Amino acid sequence: MSRGSGRKAFQQYYPESTRTCYGCGPDNARGYRIRSFWEGEGDDREAVCRFTPEPFHTAVPGAVYGGLIASLVDCHGTGTAAAAAYRAADRAMDTLPALRFVTGSLTVRYRRPTPMGVELVLRARAVEVAERKVRVAVRVLAEDVLTAEGEVLAVRIPEGWLERLSARGS
Amino acid sequence: MSRGSGRKAFQQYYPESTRTCYGCGPDNARGYRIRSFWEGEGDDREAVCRFTPEPFHTAVPGAVYGGLIASLVDCHGTGTAAAAAYRAADRAMDTLPALRFVTGSLTVRYRRPTPMGVELVLRARAVEVAERKVRVAVRVLAEDVLTAEGEVLAVRIPEGWLERLSARGS
Repeated sequence: MSRGSGRKAFQQYYPESTRTCYGCGPDNARGYRIRSFWEGEGDDREAVCRFTPEPFHTAVPGAVYGGLIASLVDCHGTGTAAAAAYRAADRAMDTLPALRFVTGSLTVRYRRPTPMGVELVLRARAVEVAERKVRVAVRVLAEDVLTAEGEVLAVRIPEGWLERLSARGS
Repeated sequence: MSRGSGRKAFQQYYPESTRTCYGCGPDNARGYRIRSFWEGEGDDREAVCRFTPEPFHTAVPGAVYGGLIASLVDCHGTGTAAAAAYRAADRAMDTLPALRFVTGSLTVRYRRPTPMGVELVLRARAVEVAERKVRVAVRVLAEDVLTAEGEVLAVRIPEGWLERLSARGS
């Protein structure tokens, strides 16, 4: 993977069937379209997502809406899970079969109000990588201050699951 | 509180300073503006919120975005916390001082994909009501099928906190 300015976000490797997500799908024009990248090396390696909320993404005046923070943690978490699974398998993210994850559970602890009007930085680490499940810890920072902490238990999408789900909904 | 067709949602009792929330603020024109009501009596009493996601609130095709579900659980949870606190104090929701809550922590377990194109019903119970904290359990149902379960630890907003926060952000 290139680490230069032309590098692709994790989400840009997602297969067509998972590019519709409101939080992270590059093809959802109404969504947040978050982007996640590795930063650092070795023990310092973290997956990083930067996102500036819109003025209407407010909770009480002055603070970012907690549901948006949960959404960012969720999608950055599943994206990090995918990228970590590829790393664990020593595979490039554009190789098949695609390793994609959905959220089994999500926890967010709100430590202090997240201020409006600044870029949020989410820093994630895959703390447990198994064949079917990846556990990701996420920190949410605003101007280098920790405002929330999250954990995502990401579950690998089994083969054929997306096709069955999509057929049921049509 | 009237239980007739003219009854007000919990959120319609929120004081001006907390009506801006993207999830539940009646004054946030860009937000979800969820509405929560009591249903049932005695041990069967639950706070209920009904919400139909927009077509673009998708995760993988056919399934509702988990971050939206987390947002609904969050705001229905804090609304239920406020209503339960008023009940515990044997006070009407339009009496002062206002009892309002923010989210201390939020957990959502996704049990199965939540189908698109149907009304979601969130059913909440305050399982622990203390002076400063209310714990709320939320079930998310689609066509009577449980698709997700959540828990919100809601923390009562201390007096003067909103004013200090608002002043810092301006």
